[in-house]
Amino acid sequence: MSDTARDTALRLYELAGDDPGLRFSPHCWKVRMALAHKGLSPECVPWHFAEKDAIAFSGQGLVPVLVAGETVVSDSFRIAEYLEAAYPERPTLFGGEMGRATARFINAYADTLPVPLIARTLLMDIHDRLAPGDRPYFRQSREKRFGMTLEQAAADAPARIEELRRILQPLRLMLKAQPFLSGAEPAYADYCLFGMFMWARVISPTELLAEDDPVHAWRAALLDAFDGFARAAPTAGARAA
Amino acid sequence: MSDTARDTALRLYELAGDDPGLRFSPHCWKVRMALAHKGLSPECVPWHFAEKDAIAFSGQGLVPVLVAGETVVSDSFRIAEYLEAAYPERPTLFGGEMGRATARFINAYADTLPVPLIARTLLMDIHDRLAPGDRPYFRQSREKRFGMTLEQAAADAPARIEELRRILQPLRLMLKAQPFLSGAEPAYADYCLFGMFMWARVISPTELLAEDDPVHAWRAALLDAFDGFARAAPTAGARAA
Repeated sequence: MSDTARDTALRLYELAGDDPGLRFSPHCWKVRMALAHKGLSPECVPWHFAEKDAIAFSGQGLVPVLVAGETVVSDSFRIAEYLEAAYPERPTLFGGEMGRATARFINAYADTLPVPLIARTLLMDIHDRLAPGDRPYFRQSREKRFGMTLEQAAADAPARIEELRRILQPLRLMLKAQPFLSGAEPAYADYCLFGMFMWARVISPTELLAEDDPVHAWRAALLDAFDGFARAAPTAGARAA
Repeated sequence: MSDTARDTALRLYELAGDDPGLRFSPHCWKVRMALAHKGLSPECVPWHFAEKDAIAFSGQGLVPVLVAGETVVSDSFRIAEYLEAAYPERPTLFGGEMGRATARFINAYADTLPVPLIARTLLMDIHDRLAPGDRPYFRQSREKRFGMTLEQAAADAPARIEELRRILQPLRLMLKAQPFLSGAEPAYADYCLFGMFMWARVISPTELLAEDDPVHAWRAALLDAFDGFARAAPTAGARAA
């Protein structure tokens, strides 16, 4: 099968805003970067929280969902594992079994420590850019998760950004020894953390990092990867490069 | 060179208490486990903070220091890298370049987030078990680091244990999918985190984990590894198995 034929068969369902060009889910961004890493360009299908029916074929209700011919894979980490197995001849995402296992820990670090802090700083920006039909679901589910109104949860954003910068200390210490989590070049462990920065970049004018933070330079290198693939993504507002 | 000859040539300088059998440094434990992983039994030399002269040959003043024939290596991560390169035919610590890079991030996670919290809970236990000549150095350096007296820093141990359990959430989430950070079997990424639990175990009766915490079971599996190598280490007080 030619590369083109394989590419054509890939379809990625991604969370989108009211403007369907706004693709901001951190987990979808992990997959977008993994696909770019493998040199794959799927058909990207915008999806909204209210459209459960559109992905019911995947047996669950969350994106990302990747459709590859007859194969349907949900959950960002499982999609990365699928891509690694399906395209072994292309650049590796994990560098082997042990690298895959350690990347899973790094993915768990991203999702449990920094992601909830960033969520607090983005709540109102996300709410305001969702399709109107998605807003009640978003408000209700997030107010339940945080135990307060969206407005209350968003009010302490500056304190959350402070806390975020502290919780990123492992990345800063590591960057003294190597340029990427995956070593000399970025791979899936990097995308696990980079996804959440794309979430913020696409949906909000809030800057999470100080300009002299080594994490800022790491993020810039990933924005530049694959000919500036992530940097070129549409964002909600005017933004300086 | 036979295995025995190579083993004989290895010497590890380790932090010890007033009782030289008490080996509690988390970084020395990372190396102890890495050596056990490679099936190596070095000569272990107890070292005290005041004995800078004894390791001056290493060009710096901290343990662990590994001496392997003509080679001298300090810093736990660099020692692990040395062992991986010197004993490639023995079980791998990193599973390749990318696994080594991601392990470096996990090591940085351990050292920057949980280790400072555990330190706060152990300060008085460590102080009281150091050689008398080491105590003034320890008090002065740690009081400077924490900006308060040892007694003040140790007073909020219960709150630090709460915070520690929260900061271990990535490990808990990962353990839903695999038994060790390194996958099906433990390797260096696991030892990076396990070292700090041995630090606590050897020096203090304080229990850091709830018994029903999945991290507790992971720790027990590492205590059992290599025929109970870590579990057999002398501890400061009576301790239930």
